[in-house]
Amino acid sequence: MGVKIPEGVVNLMRDRNIAFIATIGRDGYPHVTPVWIDVDDDCHILVNTATSRVKYMNLKRDPRVTISLVDRNDPYNAAMIKGRVVDEVKGREAEEHIDRMAKKYLGLDRFPFRAEGEERVLLKIVAEKVISVP
Amino acid sequence: MGVKIPEGVVNLMRDRNIAFIATIGRDGYPHVTPVWIDVDDDCHILVNTATSRVKYMNLKRDPRVTISLVDRNDPYNAAMIKGRVVDEVKGREAEEHIDRMAKKYLGLDRFPFRAEGEERVLLKIVAEKVISVP
Repeated sequence: MGVKIPEGVVNLMRDRNIAFIATIGRDGYPHVTPVWIDVDDDCHILVNTATSRVKYMNLKRDPRVTISLVDRNDPYNAAMIKGRVVDEVKGREAEEHIDRMAKKYLGLDRFPFRAEGEERVLLKIVAEKVISVP
Repeated sequence: MGVKIPEGVVNLMRDRNIAFIATIGRDGYPHVTPVWIDVDDDCHILVNTATSRVKYMNLKRDPRVTISLVDRNDPYNAAMIKGRVVDEVKGREAEEHIDRMAKKYLGLDRFPFRAEGEERVLLKIVAEKVISVP
């Protein structure tokens, strides 16, 4: 089902670019928010969120997702990825991952925005279609 | 139906930040792409696209839209706007508007990416819900 993500798009995700993840809301509206983004060695796209977030609830109902990201140094170098959440991980792996994201995006050893009672969840997304520009 | 857009969010749109506009695709997938953004004196959000684009075809079918944008100098200053396309303008007004957007975003007097046979369309969006962070 999944497609290979071109190296240029993987590099956009490895760099500390903000991605915009679109889901379908309960009311049928599209929903879109900025997220930190990562890619693992199996070419899953990784998004770390909290179980209380609207995007997580949307994806539990409908796992289809589209991600748009642009190069922070050149917004006309861009990619769009259509895909699907195929797995989710909570607990220690999700906690360690959000700390790595804080290192990547903020240069900090530990994610500084933990909220009382918030449960992190690491979403694994398979790409089904990738469009890159130029 | 529309809500007032807070001044801080208007300022995010007045500055040359890239916005990410989410629509619902024909196949039911969410769709999201980067766009130039503007706001008029009647508090419409303005997005200038071409009639051949997927987002335009999506919005003809379903006018509901969500827009996410972050401050280019501080990605943790962000806004999300849910709204609806209430009007569209083609022809000279749309052409002049895309030239103004080229001035704003690229510093050029004329939009440099015109394609043969492409018809510009200026979408006017009313905000129904605005969330800003922080």
